[in-house]
Amino acid sequence: MRATMIYGPGDIRVEDRVYPGIQLPTDVVVKVTAACVCGSDLWFYRGIKNVSEPSAIGHEFVGVVESIGEAVTELAVGDFVIAPFVDSCGACPPCRNGVTVACEHIAGWGDTDEHGYFVDGAQGQAVRVPQAEATLVKVPGHPEPDAALTASLLTLSDVMATGHHAAVSANVGPGRTVVVVGDGAVGLCGVLAAKRLGAARIIAMSRHEDRAALAREFGATDIVAERGDAGVAKVRELLGGVLADSVLECVGTKESIEQALHSTRPGGSLGFVGVPTGGAEIPLRYLFDSNIHVAGGMASARTYIPELLADVLDGTINPGRVFDSVMPLEDAAEAYRAMDERRAIKVLLRP
Amino acid sequence: MRATMIYGPGDIRVEDRVYPGIQLPTDVVVKVTAACVCGSDLWFYRGIKNVSEPSAIGHEFVGVVESIGEAVTELAVGDFVIAPFVDSCGACPPCRNGVTVACEHIAGWGDTDEHGYFVDGAQGQAVRVPQAEATLVKVPGHPEPDAALTASLLTLSDVMATGHHAAVSANVGPGRTVVVVGDGAVGLCGVLAAKRLGAARIIAMSRHEDRAALAREFGATDIVAERGDAGVAKVRELLGGVLADSVLECVGTKESIEQALHSTRPGGSLGFVGVPTGGAEIPLRYLFDSNIHVAGGMASARTYIPELLADVLDGTINPGRVFDSVMPLEDAAEAYRAMDERRAIKVLLRP
Repeated sequence: MRATMIYGPGDIRVEDRVYPGIQLPTDVVVKVTAACVCGSDLWFYRGIKNVSEPSAIGHEFVGVVESIGEAVTELAVGDFVIAPFVDSCGACPPCRNGVTVACEHIAGWGDTDEHGYFVDGAQGQAVRVPQAEATLVKVPGHPEPDAALTASLLTLSDVMATGHHAAVSANVGPGRTVVVVGDGAVGLCGVLAAKRLGAARIIAMSRHEDRAALAREFGATDIVAERGDAGVAKVRELLGGVLADSVLECVGTKESIEQALHSTRPGGSLGFVGVPTGGAEIPLRYLFDSNIHVAGGMASARTYIPELLADVLDGTINPGRVFDSVMPLEDAAEAYRAMDERRAIKVLLRP
Repeated sequence: MRATMIYGPGDIRVEDRVYPGIQLPTDVVVKVTAACVCGSDLWFYRGIKNVSEPSAIGHEFVGVVESIGEAVTELAVGDFVIAPFVDSCGACPPCRNGVTVACEHIAGWGDTDEHGYFVDGAQGQAVRVPQAEATLVKVPGHPEPDAALTASLLTLSDVMATGHHAAVSANVGPGRTVVVVGDGAVGLCGVLAAKRLGAARIIAMSRHEDRAALAREFGATDIVAERGDAGVAKVRELLGGVLADSVLECVGTKESIEQALHSTRPGGSLGFVGVPTGGAEIPLRYLFDSNIHVAGGMASARTYIPELLADVLDGTINPGRVFDSVMPLEDAAEAYRAMDERRAIKVLLRP
């Protein structure tokens, strides 16, 4: 099969790889219908994270179950499924608490599972899925979703689940005022999640016309281009002299975390899903003095997918709109370039 | 009148001071029935916080309204009232959000109000209370509470409200497993608050027999004397191999914050009310990786008092048990010594 490999910074190649097969009774093999490039894939592409050897890459995909292990009873060949961005067992204490990203038997796509078997990356034609019944979510009644629905289902793998996690972590709910820091695919999904959860006012911080337009489509009531103290002042002005009840941090830099923290009112909530980089910290004394709640981290997409899926299927939300570019899998290198140069918000790959 | 002053580290004196009078139409003057010494008073006593000039001290008191300003209609002479550990206006945005400790017109006991008038410290015979209707909570039907009830009412000024804040911030609720770090008056009240909120299991970390006994009386199901990794291992053992859903941090040192953080399960909640000292921080990357929620800070006692008061009055909770010593106001210096030397958990002062 054809699959995407990263050889080092800036070096993405689509190559012939061994077609995956069932290794364990709880495996299934999924023929990938759509995959995509994530902002976190760019860390390797940009050399921020090291690539020690040529590696399979990609962690977001949807597709059709092609073969199943003998212990699999709840999935069948032909099912259309969504894969969260990590696998999980569904039975350990963290999984039972809904925190599937802390699964004690976790495996990442493009890595090896706990039994030492290779797990394919998502940016390829097929993937062996370990712990498949616990990991995959079947899309009922849609054996062959159309392009628009496929795109929205694919966001549940990661970006929509992550935007939702930011909103939940920031205690977004009916009547709350919200600021979203970050206008990438996750930030935009954060806007959509905040709208879905009933926020009264949603301020998206964006300096890009196309992203601001999509933020408005997703439910943003206001766009703020200013940054730093000027950005905080603008938020305060828009909210009638006070700061926001809920702030979603979807970047992870020192500057963006500060922007988010200083936009949150006393006793408000900061949900952060941007991986902290560049020495980003939140001074504990600031939290003490402000009574601000902080929560976030990696989204347990597997836990969130069922409720989000219902809203995707009935048309309430259409997160697939974050894909502003579709390319064939063979053009994966160009997909990375387009995202690296911010020519695309998010690129969908068709194997 | 007689009132307590601090002159410097270790130097507490009870002196003659001017009896307070009404300065503003919204003032009342309260004749103090009971006051007490707080762990945070000891920071000045121990020289951890600077005392630049002789200052009135104490921020917890209950008593009887003695005179009222002409704009006061909801309080009357003779009412028995509880004073939260700071005053608040009740009308600004933070107050309307219930975060009275972030009141835009806040004044501290022993300081000056925003109009420049002196506000008495709590450890004296009488106190002028600014913004009195918003600040004070009337105890209905108890013009002269007995000693035991007075002690419990007095804890609502600070320690019981603060323990409750730790528990609320740590998302304590029915069925949750709880660890409480700190066996001072606040930690003990945290145990009581966790019990009141329905926790299934409450592990109190204590090395003092008398405090551990009171923790058990308040609802602790287990006592752990170990610290550091051994303490975390013990928690994990008691909880069947997992960490706690909710952890209350009631100390504020680097070691205690780490103890609390490392006792919290992935996706669990850490409520912290110990003022962070000695470089205590929580690494943001740790929060990201663990999905742990963090909230806390100063308790908005004014917001919590009504619901806690109801449970004190009907005998559901008896937080006044944290007072293991009662002294006349004239012995304030000895009260500070007893607490500094940990001979007393908390000393009640009778003016």
